[in-house]
Amino acid sequence: MENKLEIMRHSCAHVVAAAARELFPDAKFGVGPVVDHGFYYDIDFPENITDEDLKKIEKKAKHMIKQNLKFERKEMKIDEAISFFENTKQDYKVSLLKDLKERGTTKMTEEELQDLGDSVEDVSLYQTGEFVDLCRGPHVESTKEIGAFKLTKLAGAYWRGDQDNAQLQRVYGICFETKEELNAHLHMLEEAKKRDHRILGEQLEIYTFDEEVGPGLPLWLPNGGIIIEEIEKLAKEVENKYGYSRVRTPHVAKESLYLRSGHLPYYKESMFPPMEMDNETYYLKAMNCPHHHKIFGTHKKSYRDMPVRLAEYGANYRYEDSGALFGLMRVRSLSMNDAHIYCTEEQFEEEFIKVLDMYKLYFDLFGIEKYKMRLSKHSKEGLGKKYVDNEKLWIKTEEQVRNALIKSDMPFVEVEDEAAFYGPKIDVEIWSVIGREFTLATNQLDFAVPERFELTYVDKDGQEKTPICIHRAPLSTHERLIGFLIEHYAGAFPVWLSPVQVHFVPVSEKHIEGTRTLAQEFSDKGVRVKIDEADETVGNKIRKASQSKAPYVVVVGDKELAGEDWQIRVRGQEDQESMGKDKFVDRVLGEIEGRK
Amino acid sequence: MENKLEIMRHSCAHVVAAAARELFPDAKFGVGPVVDHGFYYDIDFPENITDEDLKKIEKKAKHMIKQNLKFERKEMKIDEAISFFENTKQDYKVSLLKDLKERGTTKMTEEELQDLGDSVEDVSLYQTGEFVDLCRGPHVESTKEIGAFKLTKLAGAYWRGDQDNAQLQRVYGICFETKEELNAHLHMLEEAKKRDHRILGEQLEIYTFDEEVGPGLPLWLPNGGIIIEEIEKLAKEVENKYGYSRVRTPHVAKESLYLRSGHLPYYKESMFPPMEMDNETYYLKAMNCPHHHKIFGTHKKSYRDMPVRLAEYGANYRYEDSGALFGLMRVRSLSMNDAHIYCTEEQFEEEFIKVLDMYKLYFDLFGIEKYKMRLSKHSKEGLGKKYVDNEKLWIKTEEQVRNALIKSDMPFVEVEDEAAFYGPKIDVEIWSVIGREFTLATNQLDFAVPERFELTYVDKDGQEKTPICIHRAPLSTHERLIGFLIEHYAGAFPVWLSPVQVHFVPVSEKHIEGTRTLAQEFSDKGVRVKIDEADETVGNKIRKASQSKAPYVVVVGDKELAGEDWQIRVRGQEDQESMGKDKFVDRVLGEIEGRK
Repeated sequence: MENKLEIMRHSCAHVVAAAARELFPDAKFGVGPVVDHGFYYDIDFPENITDEDLKKIEKKAKHMIKQNLKFERKEMKIDEAISFFENTKQDYKVSLLKDLKERGTTKMTEEELQDLGDSVEDVSLYQTGEFVDLCRGPHVESTKEIGAFKLTKLAGAYWRGDQDNAQLQRVYGICFETKEELNAHLHMLEEAKKRDHRILGEQLEIYTFDEEVGPGLPLWLPNGGIIIEEIEKLAKEVENKYGYSRVRTPHVAKESLYLRSGHLPYYKESMFPPMEMDNETYYLKAMNCPHHHKIFGTHKKSYRDMPVRLAEYGANYRYEDSGALFGLMRVRSLSMNDAHIYCTEEQFEEEFIKVLDMYKLYFDLFGIEKYKMRLSKHSKEGLGKKYVDNEKLWIKTEEQVRNALIKSDMPFVEVEDEAAFYGPKIDVEIWSVIGREFTLATNQLDFAVPERFELTYVDKDGQEKTPICIHRAPLSTHERLIGFLIEHYAGAFPVWLSPVQVHFVPVSEKHIEGTRTLAQEFSDKGVRVKIDEADETVGNKIRKASQSKAPYVVVVGDKELAGEDWQIRVRGQEDQESMGKDKFVDRVLGEIEGRK
Repeated sequence: MENKLEIMRHSCAHVVAAAARELFPDAKFGVGPVVDHGFYYDIDFPENITDEDLKKIEKKAKHMIKQNLKFERKEMKIDEAISFFENTKQDYKVSLLKDLKERGTTKMTEEELQDLGDSVEDVSLYQTGEFVDLCRGPHVESTKEIGAFKLTKLAGAYWRGDQDNAQLQRVYGICFETKEELNAHLHMLEEAKKRDHRILGEQLEIYTFDEEVGPGLPLWLPNGGIIIEEIEKLAKEVENKYGYSRVRTPHVAKESLYLRSGHLPYYKESMFPPMEMDNETYYLKAMNCPHHHKIFGTHKKSYRDMPVRLAEYGANYRYEDSGALFGLMRVRSLSMNDAHIYCTEEQFEEEFIKVLDMYKLYFDLFGIEKYKMRLSKHSKEGLGKKYVDNEKLWIKTEEQVRNALIKSDMPFVEVEDEAAFYGPKIDVEIWSVIGREFTLATNQLDFAVPERFELTYVDKDGQEKTPICIHRAPLSTHERLIGFLIEHYAGAFPVWLSPVQVHFVPVSEKHIEGTRTLAQEFSDKGVRVKIDEADETVGNKIRKASQSKAPYVVVVGDKELAGEDWQIRVRGQEDQESMGKDKFVDRVLGEIEGRK
């Protein structure tokens, strides 16, 4: 267990299990690992419990915490422990111990979160009150060290994740050091629910899925189309400034391309199934790099051409299990803000700093205040197996990445033994305004694949050398970024991203013609407008406009058409603002221009 | 045979065959149909003839034409004709006659251009000089009516297109009424060769193909990327002005979508092969309409929402036989300037006129002076078979299309019995500046498919009605349009489309730094620049710049850096222009802005 918070959360799980045992003495206990923000415990109750029961367990656990019970560690021989749990009819614990004895671990799969032992001879048990649990620990000294917690939900869970096993009930809880933190988290969850991109995405007509098209394949509706176009405009503007060239590549290629790149056969499971054509096997592309490598390799390059930065908003197709699909967050078609930078070793640091600059520019633009990079490095043991066998280059490039991160003042952590095969990996984590974490994108430094594609440049000394390649996608995919932004903005996109920027509401039939003229004027200047010409009350139309989250709503009646000042309804503002037409249009245009 | 020109060309083919027979008395003759600009004749020579022999045949044929030989028609019973050709050892004619006798036609496939008879009893033969040929006619009266001709090439051709048959030699010729027309055409062919988009496309680094990616799947290099981006910017600007909404749809969909649209099974041969995933069959999209129909259908529409115009530069995948692939003109991946307009019957004419306006705007912009639309209509006989069974709607919509074409002053021809299944089809033909014809795009009016997708809008009267759909793609596909433009401009793209707009040539090493500062100034203002920093002579660098067809080349030395007037090398202009830096940058920006 990594830190104090996790120890506390795990201890809380024990107390919850102890409380459950008090209330349901025949309950049998599975495992109770720590998860983000809390824990869960899988329990086999004599009869399925309800949300009411959950509240009772919570109450009981809180009572026990107040009693300041000690966590007492007991060590015993494994066979003794087996007998102990056999006597208390804790079948799952017995099964875990038997696994431990046989295999040296209780984990059946990599996915399991908890390993309950590391010795096949001795095990440790922890007692809290009258409840004794098999556990490696560590734990807090006594229950008073456990902060604030709450049981959040019940779910079904098969024992060891296997559908052929018994179904247990998974009790989820969250746990924080203070009540304030707990409440903040609960508030965040509540906000996240309201901001759910799947609900808002449909409500705001941003995207849809269609049964006949297929799961995980979003269709972007006109409002989504506007957001995508604006994001691509931004990306192109920025990438242009940073000296990128834009290319376009097809969405398919022969198997041989992915054999060369090394994606086949290793990545096959994540690719769409093959197509057989002209006695060749074709695949939909799951990544753009092999195509870009081909473009780099088309014409001979000299050191004067370097770095070469090839950018493409490429659509990639990746197979995800249909059960894993989730709104825009997990899809099968991904439109990626992709680019590959081919540079010399000497150029790498500067190029990577420029990539980080770009991230910061975007974070700033989208009001992302909390972010972190995670630098995944090689391990000495993995060299030649999991990692390309060139320790010197690993150390050098990791050092370069680290330096770039430090120079850019980018918050980051380092993790051993999680790199990609061909170089260090840099994951970007961001937090939305309500504090929810998202993995935005992954950058990779690649010093191995360019060689497989025989990519070279002629250096000053006349020698052919292999460039390093940086894979980067600061704006992630449209799917993930827009999914994030919907939550981040709660659907109230800033003016420059809003599908409708100024929403006009004519007071009555006779104001429609005049409103059209006004709206056209705004439209001609580059403002996206909408006129609600429906035969409804003004109040109703204002309500609809506000639901659509348009940043500005203008009711147009006689006065407005006569040239008097307008009363502007500004999204999120109680009071209307009074302003002349020209001043208003300048304000909107200024916000669009400044991407506000 | 449709017209005088074709009759003349076909008569010329006879004379050429007669000449070939004089020179090679044992030659056996196949068929000799009319093709664009001329004719061919398939001949089985005792030994393969050479280009030298071709010249001899041409000379002999010209001599025969001068003799003013008559075309004499003879009618005879089919068996008599068979005996005649058996006696003259014309095996192929005998075989044609036997087919005619048995089957009522000599055509084995739809692709064959010529049918030599329509009666199984009587046939006609034509004699020119001593050469007698099986032919339905008509012909010119005598050879003096044949204008100017030239034999252009020899090619191999299997008898009846079947590889199992004997290989004949195909003699190609072109034929025009006057020598001037013939020479103009020859000049055009020569120009077209120089402007070949496949050669220029590679030379100018616009696109490439790669063996490992696959045939017919172009990779657009950075220069091509620039052209594509500019064209898309144009399309979006224009479509935005015309009230289109932009959408984005995935490149795959389930089989069921194409079954509903009716593309499967009929269009299957032209689609990429299926992919099997999750027990479903998926296809790459060969067209965007089904996806757009789904988007139209996502939310309920009222007459107030109509027309709905959904645009997408969608990438489509179509299977073409690898032998049929040709540069950018015939490819397997097509990036289409696609849009679908859903409108009421009343709105159709206005909407269609707007589409025509858009065409004219583009024709004007690209300097396309000659163009024509071809309106393909239904046939009464085909109703309920080849065509949706609603004669009233056919007549009405064809009338509306015709009216729109007339009102737009668009040159057009009408063709019976060539419509699409679901509505009239309008093909757009354009001519490049050297007079070569291209089929740019096809528009379709579709009054049947929206119903298959259950697309409706609620009309003023509260009734649900089915919209009409216009399929349109005025800018065709990137592949076809850019292929055309390369020929049209001979690679010398106008300033706004040129990958490099101002090409700087520093006189020596010491001018590089200053040139970079100048170039950056241009670049910051939105001009695409390049600096040739290679260590070569100025003359050499100017030559390379001119080969790259940059519209402006500026040599930068001491004087230019000191702020004196620049000497601008303007593409296609003998004399350099002297101009201050600021005036020059304004000129370039003006041209970019005005798309010159």
